[in-house]
Amino acid sequence: MQHVIKTIRVSRAVLAMIRDANDPDRVFDLIEALFASTDAARKAVERMSRDPELARVLRERPRLGRIDLEELGRLPEGTLGRTFADHARRTGLDPSVLPVQEAPDAASYVKAHLFETHDLWHVMTGFPTTSEGELGLQAFYFAQSGSRVPMGVFVAGLCFTFLNNFELCEVAMPQVVRGWLLGRRARRLFGTDWKTLLDKPLEEIRATFSLELDKVDAILREFERTRPFAVTVQA
Amino acid sequence: MQHVIKTIRVSRAVLAMIRDANDPDRVFDLIEALFASTDAARKAVERMSRDPELARVLRERPRLGRIDLEELGRLPEGTLGRTFADHARRTGLDPSVLPVQEAPDAASYVKAHLFETHDLWHVMTGFPTTSEGELGLQAFYFAQSGSRVPMGVFVAGLCFTFLNNFELCEVAMPQVVRGWLLGRRARRLFGTDWKTLLDKPLEEIRATFSLELDKVDAILREFERTRPFAVTVQA
Repeated sequence: MQHVIKTIRVSRAVLAMIRDANDPDRVFDLIEALFASTDAARKAVERMSRDPELARVLRERPRLGRIDLEELGRLPEGTLGRTFADHARRTGLDPSVLPVQEAPDAASYVKAHLFETHDLWHVMTGFPTTSEGELGLQAFYFAQSGSRVPMGVFVAGLCFTFLNNFELCEVAMPQVVRGWLLGRRARRLFGTDWKTLLDKPLEEIRATFSLELDKVDAILREFERTRPFAVTVQA
Repeated sequence: MQHVIKTIRVSRAVLAMIRDANDPDRVFDLIEALFASTDAARKAVERMSRDPELARVLRERPRLGRIDLEELGRLPEGTLGRTFADHARRTGLDPSVLPVQEAPDAASYVKAHLFETHDLWHVMTGFPTTSEGELGLQAFYFAQSGSRVPMGVFVAGLCFTFLNNFELCEVAMPQVVRGWLLGRRARRLFGTDWKTLLDKPLEEIRATFSLELDKVDAILREFERTRPFAVTVQA
């Protein structure tokens, strides 16, 4: 019975997001519903506690805190922090839009950390903050975590795209493939103490995490190149 | 307004399939709704007519016709026909379940041909007739055609899997990646006169179509191998 109620709550949030995925509130509602209904944060803590490295993360709870774009913008070119600042300015991104949440316990830390590091994951993985880029990044999260939360956002986003912006599906699918391959291959990004990495070269950090962007992008190019259609078959 | 009505009809069929994807009638309802509401067959004919090779297919309308499993089972091992017969027996597949539809015009041919060749596509691509295999094959269809019909089935199937059988999502995603890569790379399978190929070696036919199964499977293995999780992070 509990399962049915949970499924209904998630389904409703999924449907709300399918109706209006461009409203950030709907996306946050869905994420909250997924966290609440699936007990995702509590389950994460349970499972992560069995992994020594993750257990340490949950005790130390490294936070990113407030982002000072001015300060990051003064870092040398090519550093993670500078690239993030440039990316934020170019896309009109305001990191203060993402709520800085309290993390008095391990479960709330999981959520807070995921929220505040989302834009850094965009920079690390190279996914743009477009609809197709977000779909790719959710596939990356799911590949790394196997969790209901990104998979739910991914499924709802794909439904919305199919019903409201079909042409984008063909652009989104390679991003989804990219996210899955990158995410399976890379070391876990969750739990990273990003503060200590902001002044390091981005390419170096990517290599440390086995984030093989060039390799995956080469695969996608290779498997796109020989597409044999003079005309797209719409059937 | 027409667009709204179409969207509603497709949405209803999607939701019906999400509720009960294991009922084949629901899947067929969805496919019919997608064909009808998106005018897919008529649009396909319009676009395909502009491609000389496809225009020829629409004039000649090669059909598979009734499959005689007894007869195919007597073909040499390794042929497409024999592999199909073995596959059909092993999976308890009865090709007569798929309706042999009349094709008095080009638009009805598109549907009829897609229906009757579906199981041959399974054999050609190596996708099993499991839920995750069907999701992978729909991704393959979409990669080849860019069409609303397979994308709709894919999205609905993924929603169903997420809500009713979440653990399968992690199994399905590599199949989706496989379908997309294979489908982008391969020559168009649509319009093939399969009758003339049943006694040819499957591996040879796959090579002719640039269906690079070994290459794609190697990529998936490589990008799975280094997954660094002692514990799956559920967050």
